[in-house]
Amino acid sequence: MDHTTARPVEYEDASPEVREVYDDIMASRGIDFIPNAWKVFASHPPTLKRTWNEIKEVMIDGSLSALQKEMIAVAVSATNGCEYCVQSHAASARKLGMTPEMFGELVEVVALFNKTNKLAEAYQIPVDEIYYRKD
Amino acid sequence: MDHTTARPVEYEDASPEVREVYDDIMASRGIDFIPNAWKVFASHPPTLKRTWNEIKEVMIDGSLSALQKEMIAVAVSATNGCEYCVQSHAASARKLGMTPEMFGELVEVVALFNKTNKLAEAYQIPVDEIYYRKD
Amino acid sequence: MDHTTARPVEYEDASPEVREVYDDIMASRGIDFIPNAWKVFASHPPTLKRTWNEIKEVMIDGSLSALQKEMIAVAVSATNGCEYCVQSHAASARKLGMTPEMFGELVEVVALFNKTNKLAEAYQIPVDEIYYRKD
Amino acid sequence: MDHTTARPVEYEDASPEVREVYDDIMASRGIDFIPNAWKVFASHPPTLKRTWNEIKEVMIDGSLSALQKEMIAVAVSATNGCEYCVQSHAASARKLGMTPEMFGELVEVVALFNKTNKLAEAYQIPVDEIYYRKD
Amino acid sequence: MDHTTARPVEYEDASPEVREVYDDIMASRGIDFIPNAWKVFASHPPTLKRTWNEIKEVMIDGSLSALQKEMIAVAVSATNGCEYCVQSHAASARKLGMTPEMFGELVEVVALFNKTNKLAEAYQIPVDEIYYRKD
Amino acid sequence: MDHTTARPVEYEDASPEVREVYDDIMASRGIDFIPNAWKVFASHPPTLKRTWNEIKEVMIDGSLSALQKEMIAVAVSATNGCEYCVQSHAASARKLGMTPEMFGELVEVVALFNKTNKLAEAYQIPVDEIYYRKD
Repeated sequence: MDHTTARPVEYEDASPEVREVYDDIMASRGIDFIPNAWKVFASHPPTLKRTWNEIKEVMIDGSLSALQKEMIAVAVSATNGCEYCVQSHAASARKLGMTPEMFGELVEVVALFNKTNKLAEAYQIPVDEIYYRKD
Repeated sequence: MDHTTARPVEYEDASPEVREVYDDIMASRGIDFIPNAWKVFASHPPTLKRTWNEIKEVMIDGSLSALQKEMIAVAVSATNGCEYCVQSHAASARKLGMTPEMFGELVEVVALFNKTNKLAEAYQIPVDEIYYRKD
Repeated sequence: MDHTTARPVEYEDASPEVREVYDDIMASRGIDFIPNAWKVFASHPPTLKRTWNEIKEVMIDGSLSALQKEMIAVAVSATNGCEYCVQSHAASARKLGMTPEMFGELVEVVALFNKTNKLAEAYQIPVDEIYYRKD
Repeated sequence: MDHTTARPVEYEDASPEVREVYDDIMASRGIDFIPNAWKVFASHPPTLKRTWNEIKEVMIDGSLSALQKEMIAVAVSATNGCEYCVQSHAASARKLGMTPEMFGELVEVVALFNKTNKLAEAYQIPVDEIYYRKD
Repeated sequence: MDHTTARPVEYEDASPEVREVYDDIMASRGIDFIPNAWKVFASHPPTLKRTWNEIKEVMIDGSLSALQKEMIAVAVSATNGCEYCVQSHAASARKLGMTPEMFGELVEVVALFNKTNKLAEAYQIPVDEIYYRKD
Repeated sequence: MDHTTARPVEYEDASPEVREVYDDIMASRGIDFIPNAWKVFASHPPTLKRTWNEIKEVMIDGSLSALQKEMIAVAVSATNGCEYCVQSHAASARKLGMTPEMFGELVEVVALFNKTNKLAEAYQIPVDEIYYRKD
């Protein structure tokens, strides 16, 4: 962690408010370590708390399953080319049941629509009226 | 369609090879018109044929459902900021059963991970060893 | 031009230094109007002058032809999804001799590599040693 | 290859259908190894086959030369910030005859238009009517 | 608002929980209307509440002034090419005191570093050791 | 520097014109080494000279301070996911007085608006008339 742009906060050096979030992360996730991202977010405690709360609220089963949401996180991260994000969300998705076959299809779809997105931009295609929502 | 960067091809002006793809699009999709994108792709027939074949092969139920794939297409398109793509894939996903609640959750997840992706880039966070695949 | 974020500068309202750039643009390009971009850049004269000088120096025949350079500008602009840029560089490329066939191939290549770029990001592929330059 | 998100497929472990693509890649490219990208794509055979077929069909001399197409691939890859893609396409372009001077000009053009693309977005410049195609 | 992908919620149709956020937005901002963004976010109330709370907490004077933060919002939005975001944050920044001169410099800086970012990617430049933080 | 895509130019191997820029960089910046970026830009001298001149002209105190400009450079670089750029501009900003607290707020703002930018794209929100400039 020598090359992060802010100093990570280890558990033993953490303030009580940061430690409270760390404890919640480990309990909620069923893990016994603090992933690098959270240690670095702790360099600015409001970012740690707000991001953790948002993830905890959003990434549960709802109309979409937690697994579907993790796969969407992979899709976003691959599109943005974010290494940490691709690796960590792929790991989370595997933990939630994503098979190699599912991952293969996910990547295929992400790649395909990055292609067609650029076809649409290069050709400057106007939206068909029929696509607008009707409600 | 006056502002596309290539001249769209109407059904009545299409060559037999383009018309064959058009007929397949309408039959496969159960529609009686050619969406703008395909008319413009037809300005370069190999793009029309290759893109249509790829979409037809990829966007079927597999390990992921056709609906899940369309929602991933929306996630990619929103991340890229492609208007045509967001509108057309949102329409397709609605047709396949995406409810307003599901769309709300999808957008929430896309937005959240565009945020955390940039946290990871700004802080230059190294990947935790534990995230790498083990197989 | 009511919706630009800075006030465009019309030729008749321009300062002598701005007018000098405008005259050079029209003379160099063989046109008798000031394109919108330059009118808006003139809201901050250093941006107008610096951008024009850079474009004038870079966009000439060199190891790559002016036409090849305009097509690369289209590739960049489509990848970024910039409407003004796609339209204006496609127009410039057509003026320099780009045929519809060439444009079709250009768009095909742009789309294809936006796809493979995302395959590489999703799979986190390490660079083959053999690809590094040897000089 | 320990950190790819899908398990690469070595030649000796490949199924006949994957091996057939591998053989074609080596024969078409005149190389005696399988680049990392293809080994990883082989984790999902349809991606391997479809991507290879598309690249083989698109990246030949046409209205644009194979070299021009590789340089456009570099332009796209640099704009997207994809390390594997920049390195592999720069290598391919050098093999097809791209000189250091040509590469210098290519990079210069890519950088310049990434700049002007953002000027256009920041200023929200409307397209000049004259730029739209007339055919 | 006919072309948004979710149905906007007007004040008179809003649930009590949405109306509470709307009232807070108008009071905090000193405005007597609900901007389009919030009306659409209200289609998914958790997004409305979470986004508003986050903006209210983050966009106040701190180590950076509210104005500096709005200008950073413009920088991000122009880099992403988001029309709504560029226009709304430029408006907010002007309200907080951004002059045309300041906006001109802001845009110049955004454009310049989008250019150098792509030089760094095209050339694959390794980080100088001296740049890493020392604390 | 073995993996840059162009050969870096060391001071002792530099032509007089490149050496002149190098000397100016070291004198202006108060440093006694040439950062990697400039060594690689020197592989194409016009890029070295033009980029250095632009940076020297733009990155001075003006309506915005040099520090504010460096922080905007960080915002752009994080949004683009450019490692070299994030590290080098964060270093420059620290040198000009950016505290860890200021960096924490900067990153928070960058992340927040990358999120809302994607909300705006996913929902396709039209610009409120009131946001357009009035001058």
